[in-house]
Amino acid sequence: MVIDELRQLLNDVKNNKVDVGDALTRLKTLPYEDLGFALMDHHRALRKGFPEVIFCQGKTVEQIAQIFKKLCGGQRSILGTRATREAFKAVREIYPDAVYHELARTIVVYRGEQPPKKGRVLVMSAGTADLPVAEEAAITAEAMGNEIRRCYDVGVAGIHRLLDKLDMIRWAHVIIVVAGMEGALASVVGGLADQPIIAVPTSVGYGASFNGLSALLCMLNSCASGVGVVNIDNGFGAGALANAITQMIERASA
Amino acid sequence: MVIDELRQLLNDVKNNKVDVGDALTRLKTLPYEDLGFALMDHHRALRKGFPEVIFCQGKTVEQIAQIFKKLCGGQRSILGTRATREAFKAVREIYPDAVYHELARTIVVYRGEQPPKKGRVLVMSAGTADLPVAEEAAITAEAMGNEIRRCYDVGVAGIHRLLDKLDMIRWAHVIIVVAGMEGALASVVGGLADQPIIAVPTSVGYGASFNGLSALLCMLNSCASGVGVVNIDNGFGAGALANAITQMIERASA
Amino acid sequence: MVIDELRQLLNDVKNNKVDVGDALTRLKTLPYEDLGFALMDHHRALRKGFPEVIFCQGKTVEQIAQIFKKLCGGQRSILGTRATREAFKAVREIYPDAVYHELARTIVVYRGEQPPKKGRVLVMSAGTADLPVAEEAAITAEAMGNEIRRCYDVGVAGIHRLLDKLDMIRWAHVIIVVAGMEGALASVVGGLADQPIIAVPTSVGYGASFNGLSALLCMLNSCASGVGVVNIDNGFGAGALANAITQMIERASA
Amino acid sequence: MVIDELRQLLNDVKNNKVDVGDALTRLKTLPYEDLGFALMDHHRALRKGFPEVIFCQGKTVEQIAQIFKKLCGGQRSILGTRATREAFKAVREIYPDAVYHELARTIVVYRGEQPPKKGRVLVMSAGTADLPVAEEAAITAEAMGNEIRRCYDVGVAGIHRLLDKLDMIRWAHVIIVVAGMEGALASVVGGLADQPIIAVPTSVGYGASFNGLSALLCMLNSCASGVGVVNIDNGFGAGALANAITQMIERASA
Amino acid sequence: MVIDELRQLLNDVKNNKVDVGDALTRLKTLPYEDLGFALMDHHRALRKGFPEVIFCQGKTVEQIAQIFKKLCGGQRSILGTRATREAFKAVREIYPDAVYHELARTIVVYRGEQPPKKGRVLVMSAGTADLPVAEEAAITAEAMGNEIRRCYDVGVAGIHRLLDKLDMIRWAHVIIVVAGMEGALASVVGGLADQPIIAVPTSVGYGASFNGLSALLCMLNSCASGVGVVNIDNGFGAGALANAITQMIERASA
Amino acid sequence: MVIDELRQLLNDVKNNKVDVGDALTRLKTLPYEDLGFALMDHHRALRKGFPEVIFCQGKTVEQIAQIFKKLCGGQRSILGTRATREAFKAVREIYPDAVYHELARTIVVYRGEQPPKKGRVLVMSAGTADLPVAEEAAITAEAMGNEIRRCYDVGVAGIHRLLDKLDMIRWAHVIIVVAGMEGALASVVGGLADQPIIAVPTSVGYGASFNGLSALLCMLNSCASGVGVVNIDNGFGAGALANAITQMIERASA
Amino acid sequence: MVIDELRQLLNDVKNNKVDVGDALTRLKTLPYEDLGFALMDHHRALRKGFPEVIFCQGKTVEQIAQIFKKLCGGQRSILGTRATREAFKAVREIYPDAVYHELARTIVVYRGEQPPKKGRVLVMSAGTADLPVAEEAAITAEAMGNEIRRCYDVGVAGIHRLLDKLDMIRWAHVIIVVAGMEGALASVVGGLADQPIIAVPTSVGYGASFNGLSALLCMLNSCASGVGVVNIDNGFGAGALANAITQMIERASA
Amino acid sequence: MVIDELRQLLNDVKNNKVDVGDALTRLKTLPYEDLGFALMDHHRALRKGFPEVIFCQGKTVEQIAQIFKKLCGGQRSILGTRATREAFKAVREIYPDAVYHELARTIVVYRGEQPPKKGRVLVMSAGTADLPVAEEAAITAEAMGNEIRRCYDVGVAGIHRLLDKLDMIRWAHVIIVVAGMEGALASVVGGLADQPIIAVPTSVGYGASFNGLSALLCMLNSCASGVGVVNIDNGFGAGALANAITQMIERASA
Repeated sequence: MVIDELRQLLNDVKNNKVDVGDALTRLKTLPYEDLGFALMDHHRALRKGFPEVIFCQGKTVEQIAQIFKKLCGGQRSILGTRATREAFKAVREIYPDAVYHELARTIVVYRGEQPPKKGRVLVMSAGTADLPVAEEAAITAEAMGNEIRRCYDVGVAGIHRLLDKLDMIRWAHVIIVVAGMEGALASVVGGLADQPIIAVPTSVGYGASFNGLSALLCMLNSCASGVGVVNIDNGFGAGALANAITQMIERASA
Repeated sequence: MVIDELRQLLNDVKNNKVDVGDALTRLKTLPYEDLGFALMDHHRALRKGFPEVIFCQGKTVEQIAQIFKKLCGGQRSILGTRATREAFKAVREIYPDAVYHELARTIVVYRGEQPPKKGRVLVMSAGTADLPVAEEAAITAEAMGNEIRRCYDVGVAGIHRLLDKLDMIRWAHVIIVVAGMEGALASVVGGLADQPIIAVPTSVGYGASFNGLSALLCMLNSCASGVGVVNIDNGFGAGALANAITQMIERASA
Repeated sequence: MVIDELRQLLNDVKNNKVDVGDALTRLKTLPYEDLGFALMDHHRALRKGFPEVIFCQGKTVEQIAQIFKKLCGGQRSILGTRATREAFKAVREIYPDAVYHELARTIVVYRGEQPPKKGRVLVMSAGTADLPVAEEAAITAEAMGNEIRRCYDVGVAGIHRLLDKLDMIRWAHVIIVVAGMEGALASVVGGLADQPIIAVPTSVGYGASFNGLSALLCMLNSCASGVGVVNIDNGFGAGALANAITQMIERASA
Repeated sequence: MVIDELRQLLNDVKNNKVDVGDALTRLKTLPYEDLGFALMDHHRALRKGFPEVIFCQGKTVEQIAQIFKKLCGGQRSILGTRATREAFKAVREIYPDAVYHELARTIVVYRGEQPPKKGRVLVMSAGTADLPVAEEAAITAEAMGNEIRRCYDVGVAGIHRLLDKLDMIRWAHVIIVVAGMEGALASVVGGLADQPIIAVPTSVGYGASFNGLSALLCMLNSCASGVGVVNIDNGFGAGALANAITQMIERASA
Repeated sequence: MVIDELRQLLNDVKNNKVDVGDALTRLKTLPYEDLGFALMDHHRALRKGFPEVIFCQGKTVEQIAQIFKKLCGGQRSILGTRATREAFKAVREIYPDAVYHELARTIVVYRGEQPPKKGRVLVMSAGTADLPVAEEAAITAEAMGNEIRRCYDVGVAGIHRLLDKLDMIRWAHVIIVVAGMEGALASVVGGLADQPIIAVPTSVGYGASFNGLSALLCMLNSCASGVGVVNIDNGFGAGALANAITQMIERASA
Repeated sequence: MVIDELRQLLNDVKNNKVDVGDALTRLKTLPYEDLGFALMDHHRALRKGFPEVIFCQGKTVEQIAQIFKKLCGGQRSILGTRATREAFKAVREIYPDAVYHELARTIVVYRGEQPPKKGRVLVMSAGTADLPVAEEAAITAEAMGNEIRRCYDVGVAGIHRLLDKLDMIRWAHVIIVVAGMEGALASVVGGLADQPIIAVPTSVGYGASFNGLSALLCMLNSCASGVGVVNIDNGFGAGALANAITQMIERASA
Repeated sequence: MVIDELRQLLNDVKNNKVDVGDALTRLKTLPYEDLGFALMDHHRALRKGFPEVIFCQGKTVEQIAQIFKKLCGGQRSILGTRATREAFKAVREIYPDAVYHELARTIVVYRGEQPPKKGRVLVMSAGTADLPVAEEAAITAEAMGNEIRRCYDVGVAGIHRLLDKLDMIRWAHVIIVVAGMEGALASVVGGLADQPIIAVPTSVGYGASFNGLSALLCMLNSCASGVGVVNIDNGFGAGALANAITQMIERASA
Repeated sequence: MVIDELRQLLNDVKNNKVDVGDALTRLKTLPYEDLGFALMDHHRALRKGFPEVIFCQGKTVEQIAQIFKKLCGGQRSILGTRATREAFKAVREIYPDAVYHELARTIVVYRGEQPPKKGRVLVMSAGTADLPVAEEAAITAEAMGNEIRRCYDVGVAGIHRLLDKLDMIRWAHVIIVVAGMEGALASVVGGLADQPIIAVPTSVGYGASFNGLSALLCMLNSCASGVGVVNIDNGFGAGALANAITQMIERASA
């Protein structure tokens, strides 16, 4: 898949350094291992620039512990999302320095030397009930190597609170806006900022919020430009997209 | 249906001023006439305090003309909504002083002495494409006897334009907010004003606006309090609800 | 935001009563405090004319208690909605005079001198199962300073029961109609009354009621004019909109 | 499929009146003919007690004419639904006594002696725009041999008009209620009558009527008992169901 | 509401047998009592011809017991639907002869002399999981005075089983078809029978059955004529509609 | 229904070996027994070529045990799907050699001599959470007499893993693709393979996956040809369809 | 992508028959050409075993002609779907032997020697209006080298017509069932046949058919096993899936 | 809104350079003009870094021409989206150097000196029918000052075509992926790239694509991280979001 490696391999075949069978094997062998129930890709860190990520929801505590254990001894940080406190306790047995963020439901294990921060990510949320998703986004972007600021409870029905935060808005490279119910915050922030906005609809609300559909549609129809939307309650996805952006900034600036 | 009338009628029966058959007839005779395809209720003006209203959409020009003609000679104003210019031309043959509002697609015929204005209604809209609905609301509320101001093209992505309109907002008794796409304007205005807000979602937009569903859900989920929602594109309904409110103000102040 | 204050401030700057830095600070300082998880706006009472409102659903008993405690000593009444009895018990520790309405799931704490009633709000409901939402609307409107009457269990399938209530309908300034399933009550009441109607769809029902969607669509499509709709099960919103209307009546009558 | 015929056939086999191959063939031969694009079942009239019905929508004028021609010489009446005037003109060439109902978009050709009326069907509709569907129901039930009364434009927002029609309601064996928008008429009539109610939602309306979904859901959730619902705009289906009921009445009374 | 009674009353007023105040009162007094949480209409039995019905779902055992107790001493049978065994135990304290149908979740208390059966109702169901709804329909129709037969587990994927039941089909005055998943049974039965078919979609299924939406749409789109649909899982509604039909048969035959 | 049997029966009637009444009875008697709550069709094995299948979800442990017991002594294998471990324990009392597949939630009882494998079925899944559905498909196809290979955790976001499996893809006669969330795996596999693809959307995911709707729509809209879709989470259906295909292959090859 | 070719190429590199740059180029060069607006894959015929397919809907006559012209001189047959007669006229200029199927809206150009028929495909449809989709399926499967039979207008409401077709059903290797409205035909056929069934929902119908959603859901929820569903109106997809199955039969039998 | 300007203004007031009335006026005067039907914000270019954008859909040719004319003489480029050729002709009268992109339906007028390109944007699309949306995205990003590459017709059913484009993928700073139907391309590209991906669902497709809903849901549920989604068919929004990202890259690199 990588032209240079492929060229090298072909040259090695040509020069009889590698025989054809081995070349075929190397072309075919992909660097993952089979855990029985899940394949893990150690290469992804190189490709995507972030820690190994484990989506814990729907997995048993035993399965989660087994996946964490498998990664033991590696040099990459690990991020577990949608994790219960019980899962964390099992992980702490393996990694005593693991940290649990209650609100964000995330487990973070730092490994290797932490590089300088790639970029500045502002996480805004409309209401108190949106905090778990907002925190998942914040912890994710932080674990991937970004500086985070939080600006919570700035719903559009109290627009003066938002206007007070213009300094924070100016500070950011990327802004994550987390909102349920009518999700209008993304549009208002999008009108005040010219940075990329990542909108995260949440399932907060009742009745005609239809579990986040209302906020999702609102954000997709935003009259502000520069807004990209992720799945309902997908704090992790927002943090990862923010990191993809700051990573490009860092790479382009290098 | 009216206790006092009923008591009078019973007394008249008792005193032999009205015989039983006539009493039964009077109880049963309701003051509408049969046009063949539509019953019309001359009493509604008394009951609901606004002009005779004709919803023209889906009716032929001939049907519309026939209904207008039927009302000829009456003392009530007439409001035709969702009317084409062709329908207007047919109506103008009957009422030379009829007025057509192109954008609002309304025909208005004033009759009787116009009373002093009942209340102050502000109509706001988010975008240019929302104007037909906004104008339908404005003309409706005006035809029902209210003073109207308009504040158009104040979408939430340019929040500074909205903040410039605070004087107008303070002026109003009722505020009608018309918006399509993400419909967030209702929440922002609801946060700035303590008057009743009537939110009108419009079918303006494309893709995930789903013909107004997006704006409708957004408005129903508004985090601002004091917001009532009407059907998608229902400018008439918003104007009529605004009038129901100003009418109560007028009545309570009397 | 307030022109007069702004003018005064500019005059003070001009007259050297306030220096530029302080003026900037005052322009920027907004009167809320940060509780860590929620910003609270003491100004809202002035702006919106109703008590401090706390939406308790989704908050822990500890969070609710902390928010109530924070407001201690203030002169405003407090309304907690969607509150469990457990939350109430914690609140009663702080405010021994707090009152819990079981059916409405609300906590009310009255503070300051109660002003004369602003307006007359009639709350109607179609079925027994709609009562929690109807009561939330009633308690909300009452806590905001309105006189309330209730007219429950008047579904449209027994229209004679409704016709018996015409006196009550005539009494009201605003009518709140609460109904699930087919939600037809709003249209029928809208045809009998010329006051503003606030329609509250409820999630009562099963099957094709789709958790209130049926009643919501029915109410939005009401053939009666003068009807505004709030979110499914949003009794609070209905009460607050009713209060916005009676408040305008009071203000306009003053 | 008919036990008696089957017994006869078996007896004929037993008595060598019919040989086995013929018996097999007769069991397999069903009495329809192949027109190339549509199979027609002459037996249906016997089985379902109503005329040959042709759903014209989506068929070309030529196809419609061909189907009508095929039925020529038969003793059954023919009902064409959703027919344009152009289709009618082609049919009139074949059947000079064919009748076209403009509003109902139906073609009726009577054949054979018309039997006495089976039952009394009342067709009610909420608004002028519902008339085409109401008329389709009325013409269908009439063509199938029922006495019809019509009671149009009795929307629930003017409940007094409906109460004036109680005599008509008492007259009916079956009541068809046709309504779009909020479709509440079915519930109100269902509360006044104890006859079977057939509710027909129509696609009349706009915005959140979602092409009849609103009325459909409303009717399915009716709080009145004794209500059966047919597809949106399915006037034919309502008429046919009404006829199925009156036919049972006739049969049971015989 | 009843012309004859009204005439009598007016005559009595005229003849001074009833004074005006009493006449007014009688016009206004409706025969229900207020239980605090529910109004009960003793007249309904007269009007709708079936027992007092109590929808138990969503009510506490205490509320249910209270409503049953209130009806004590009356001469009408009582039907409780969606009742748990706990509710039944409380009811049995009051009515020792109450009967509980586990599968149908119904409580029946018979009172008065049971009249001869009005009509013959066949209840068919597609699968085992549809039985609770089918039984609710059967018990309802039975409690209202009909003879019932059951024909269960005749799904369309085994069409030969259905064809074996043609005798049963011929026996019935009305057929109730209960089916979840694809709900196709209604169409197949509708093609075999010319009696009125009442189709009850159930929420049985998973995935794209969307809690009964699949069966509901299938039944509304039935290509067979003579099919009326009730709400998803609404066994009671189907039984009541069947009874409305057999009642008309009985009345017309009288 | 079977021509040859029918011919034999008619011949027997003709030859007086069977009298007419018995012939009628035999025509009418279908080979199933009535368990009270479910009819069972012993013939299905002959007709559909697979074991007796029992859908356990929604049935009590007692009902499941009763159905299994009924089949005792037969020569057909039995497959129980959506079975809990509790149900299995009850079944094991009856069939000590019954096998429970925890992940697939299936019970398998083999009976009779197992024939050679009919075909080769490859089951692929996108994520760990899709495994229960994938295993249900695999166990079903295996119990029906197919050779199975599994290729799990090959989501499209790591396309290189999939490309490593081309040998497996080439091996298969039929490929079952199980995927939730965006369900894109079916299209990618469909582009690599020319065998029939059976796509199974799963309810895995959250937010805008809407319980599998997202994957379902994605698969129905696949740009690859040769893809057939079954219901959300319907592993059994996929296995049975795969078997219908391999059975045709076996039959056509015979 | 093909291991053997890859091995040959590596051997050639090793033996200096191919230099490294050429090897890289060959690995990278894919056999398609760029038309500017569409890439065409001449290899697909080898991979998928069917003619070049052109989806004409949404393309201009000029674009269609250009694509057909590009394929001139090749040895593969060409199938154009969703083609208008105008498109056909332009294609006929290039291929005088092109054939247009009016009802199916397909253009077929045969090239090369036609191989013996792979398999037997039965296409069934429920109603006349489903024919265009049914014919698209039939012509597609035929153009791909299958023997086709048609069995149209066998809706489930006339189940006797269907039972008459059992011989045809037995004949088929694969059955395509095309149905709109309630789409129940797939379940009924699935109960009679043990071959793989491909169900094609159509958008035929009105009201609650919601443009084919009704039939789609019905088919996905089929209680018959062995049914795979394709997109609404996707006759081509059904034909191609049928061909994927018969192709496996042919390959496995070889 | 800008702290520095505000401080300067306050200093000017303090120093009597500006009097209080003028200061108030300047605070309130916002730099837009009223065209009667649309407010235009000359400041937006400064705030959002891109040309004046005019959404032409739903506006008359006259309105479009009027808006373009208004901007005459300014130094900013102008981008008109969703423009017909007729609109372009009217614009060319005013700006002879205006350029029309037929496929993208955009009008571009360049003004001022074009700065060096900000970033590298790759636009990929799945099918020919997606080109109009892809081109709208490309032209938008280009008009805002980015270098564009296009990679069209790389649907996931031909994954080898996509793998051939890895060089292009590596080149980009941001990747816009445009796809209808199942929209799986975004996930596959997201697995190959670590740049930010902007996914644009299109309404291309039929049946269960539900006008783009299918692709929208698929993209929101992408299993790849780093994907942000915009509205269906919103090519402009994708281009603008890409520009927001490259603009941050440029700013951060400065």
